[in-house]
Amino acid sequence: MQDVLNYIDGRRGEFQADLLALLRMASVSADPAFSPEVRRAAEWIRSHLADLGLAAELVETAGHPIVYAESAPVAGAPVALVYGHYDVQPPDPLDQWTTPPFEPAIRDGKVFARGATDDKGQMLTHVKSVQSWLAAAGRLPLQVKFVIEGEEEVGSEHLGRFLRDNAPRLACDCVVISDTSQFAPGVPAITYGLRGIAYFELRLFGPKQDLHSGVFGGGVANPAVALSAMLAALVDRDGRITVPGFYDDVVPLTDAERAEFASLPFDEAAFKRQLGVAELAGEQGYTTIERRWARPTFDVNGLTSGYQGEGAKTVLPARASAKFSFRLVPNQDPHKIAAALRRRLEELVPPGIRMELVEHHGAPGIVMPLDSPYLQAAAAAVEQGFQRRPVFIREGGSIPIVNTFAEVLGADVLLLGWGQNDDNPHGPNEKFSLDDYHRGVRASAVLWQELAAIKNQPL
Amino acid sequence: MQDVLNYIDGRRGEFQADLLALLRMASVSADPAFSPEVRRAAEWIRSHLADLGLAAELVETAGHPIVYAESAPVAGAPVALVYGHYDVQPPDPLDQWTTPPFEPAIRDGKVFARGATDDKGQMLTHVKSVQSWLAAAGRLPLQVKFVIEGEEEVGSEHLGRFLRDNAPRLACDCVVISDTSQFAPGVPAITYGLRGIAYFELRLFGPKQDLHSGVFGGGVANPAVALSAMLAALVDRDGRITVPGFYDDVVPLTDAERAEFASLPFDEAAFKRQLGVAELAGEQGYTTIERRWARPTFDVNGLTSGYQGEGAKTVLPARASAKFSFRLVPNQDPHKIAAALRRRLEELVPPGIRMELVEHHGAPGIVMPLDSPYLQAAAAAVEQGFQRRPVFIREGGSIPIVNTFAEVLGADVLLLGWGQNDDNPHGPNEKFSLDDYHRGVRASAVLWQELAAIKNQPL
Repeated sequence: MQDVLNYIDGRRGEFQADLLALLRMASVSADPAFSPEVRRAAEWIRSHLADLGLAAELVETAGHPIVYAESAPVAGAPVALVYGHYDVQPPDPLDQWTTPPFEPAIRDGKVFARGATDDKGQMLTHVKSVQSWLAAAGRLPLQVKFVIEGEEEVGSEHLGRFLRDNAPRLACDCVVISDTSQFAPGVPAITYGLRGIAYFELRLFGPKQDLHSGVFGGGVANPAVALSAMLAALVDRDGRITVPGFYDDVVPLTDAERAEFASLPFDEAAFKRQLGVAELAGEQGYTTIERRWARPTFDVNGLTSGYQGEGAKTVLPARASAKFSFRLVPNQDPHKIAAALRRRLEELVPPGIRMELVEHHGAPGIVMPLDSPYLQAAAAAVEQGFQRRPVFIREGGSIPIVNTFAEVLGADVLLLGWGQNDDNPHGPNEKFSLDDYHRGVRASAVLWQELAAIKNQPL
Repeated sequence: MQDVLNYIDGRRGEFQADLLALLRMASVSADPAFSPEVRRAAEWIRSHLADLGLAAELVETAGHPIVYAESAPVAGAPVALVYGHYDVQPPDPLDQWTTPPFEPAIRDGKVFARGATDDKGQMLTHVKSVQSWLAAAGRLPLQVKFVIEGEEEVGSEHLGRFLRDNAPRLACDCVVISDTSQFAPGVPAITYGLRGIAYFELRLFGPKQDLHSGVFGGGVANPAVALSAMLAALVDRDGRITVPGFYDDVVPLTDAERAEFASLPFDEAAFKRQLGVAELAGEQGYTTIERRWARPTFDVNGLTSGYQGEGAKTVLPARASAKFSFRLVPNQDPHKIAAALRRRLEELVPPGIRMELVEHHGAPGIVMPLDSPYLQAAAAAVEQGFQRRPVFIREGGSIPIVNTFAEVLGADVLLLGWGQNDDNPHGPNEKFSLDDYHRGVRASAVLWQELAAIKNQPL
């Protein structure tokens, strides 16, 4: 192991040069004008992995190709699959970049370029760790498979099909993804839980056309009034969702989790300033971090009804609609929530109003058991790579690809973020710390060792 | 009086010809291309009144001219002022007219033309009744003043100024306006009450920019959720407005009024079909007519927040706003309502949300006492003109010009509608019954007699 780490420490300049080479490719997946650059990036990674001795290929899809590679099987050791992506967001607005997005520039120990953190830099740490093992130790302690796609920034349209079609070949014990952030500078993190979502659109219909609110007001139900009342009836003043049965399947946070979250260096005053709000708010009885990461929520995402222009118009609108969503925590079933919601709304809809409930999309939350040996292995690896024990955090949003991997491959997913919260992955001046890049390579190298040890332990 | 009525009956053809002549003028006030026609209509009315012997002039404004005329004063008799308008709505959509809008055509005893009922035909009944008195009796039994404007369809922008600047000259005991409808065919009506209005826009501000509802949901208050809750808290399930003090100044309907309304031939099933609703709805304890005419109401006129396009977007919106209005009944003060509303909303606004309340416009409701001698005189006149006792109705909307006349001139306003509900005043194939035109002239002629008698009675 020490030989591997020494190799990594000795190759910092070379590993940086490889990163800069990849960052110079403008692999913008959203814009067909960049397609040649997208393919050039895919081919660069494929040949890079092939040069290391892995079986590597470009898998064509109806969109951009997927790079697939795998090292030799290792008997008695688990299999790890690295997922990443080589495509990047469009670089607009160009005039806000200090240096051009595809001419990587190093300032203050950070490389500035589109894709630096999302996800070329983070993804490449796992390629470099494999290179280091093969060079310094002559072999990897376990089999590593790579799935590096080129459509993550445009919805991963063809990845699910690829995973399902190749499930036996992709079989693995855990999936490693580095496409998130550390908790804070100097505070590495492992994301072990994601919230799910159930997204709806409620459409209410009153009179068949807009009416004059003077002539008809008081005569017929107003769909915008009904909408307000129905939405308001879904949550109480304490931020508790009042759909019957909503909390039935919620797994409470453990004392250990609450203690872990409470120990994080989270500055509420700075957070309020960042968001521009006088007060934080949400479900009573939980901290801000708990509410964002590990409690279900209700949010109205959009409202539309009647007259929305300047000034006043005395219209009694014919219809009103709301888009709204629940963030779900692991063990809540989006289908069950949808059914309970529909029943409740049907009770709430007032006479004279017809309702339609559209179910836009749903995904369950996901949580990796904190005592999972893979998670523990990852924690040990991150601690060695970053010289600090990682914190265990959750994420309030959903990462659909994580659900897909968990469902299709049945593997634990390790979300090991090497980025920082201010890396600005979709904005101008995206950056990635070269120290974090180096630490990430080291942590990844240790991870292979730690994971390889798992099957030798009595579980 | 009988001589006057005989004169009217003998001049039906001539009076119709005058109406058709006026209808041929395309006096569309909204479109500058029609300005010469607008002026031609004004001049036609001025010269028509001058030919009858009235002092008549065009009063120039920054917009279209106002026709002002007055007959000779009559000592000991009250003064009546007729308000009407000679401008018309644009005729679009032209392709839906059976015959061209400015080529009046008579079918089934009705004249089809833009402005037929709104307001040239109705207004002209009062000109023709004055003509008949002067021709048949040699004098009018009271002084009649005419204010016929050319900007009613574009907001009467210059009328208020004219009234205020000329209040002494316009002094009168009652204002007569024929620009509304009968209750139903064969059921003439006098509109003795109008609702007022208090119109607001509530703007709620949360985070300084739209946030990701996954990453931040549960952390900060959602302005669209807050908006729903605040709006919902303004009205209860029984349709009662819950702003403290809201009903304090409401004058209850009398038993006589309720009986009058209940006697009207109102077909709820037909009304539901017309509006396309399965159920009518509103404040508990009142009939549909009472709720529309004589009870205050709350209506949301518009809602805006977050994502309103197709599909789903997981946004926690930075702001949400609603336009909403209360219809007020006579004796409710819009300013008092606005103050009570503001206090209530300030109690309701949740932590983390900043509110702005914009007061768009307010107008008090207005009601003419049913025992007013002017109203009783009008009822007698309508009964003689239409051969049926008129019903006393109210109107759910506001007619701002009525408030202006009541405020500036301190006069009772008589709303004597000769039209029908299906005359389609702002749509294609606008029409006016020639029988109603004739009856209107007769009723107007009797009205002058009935009004003239008032000052001779011990009041």
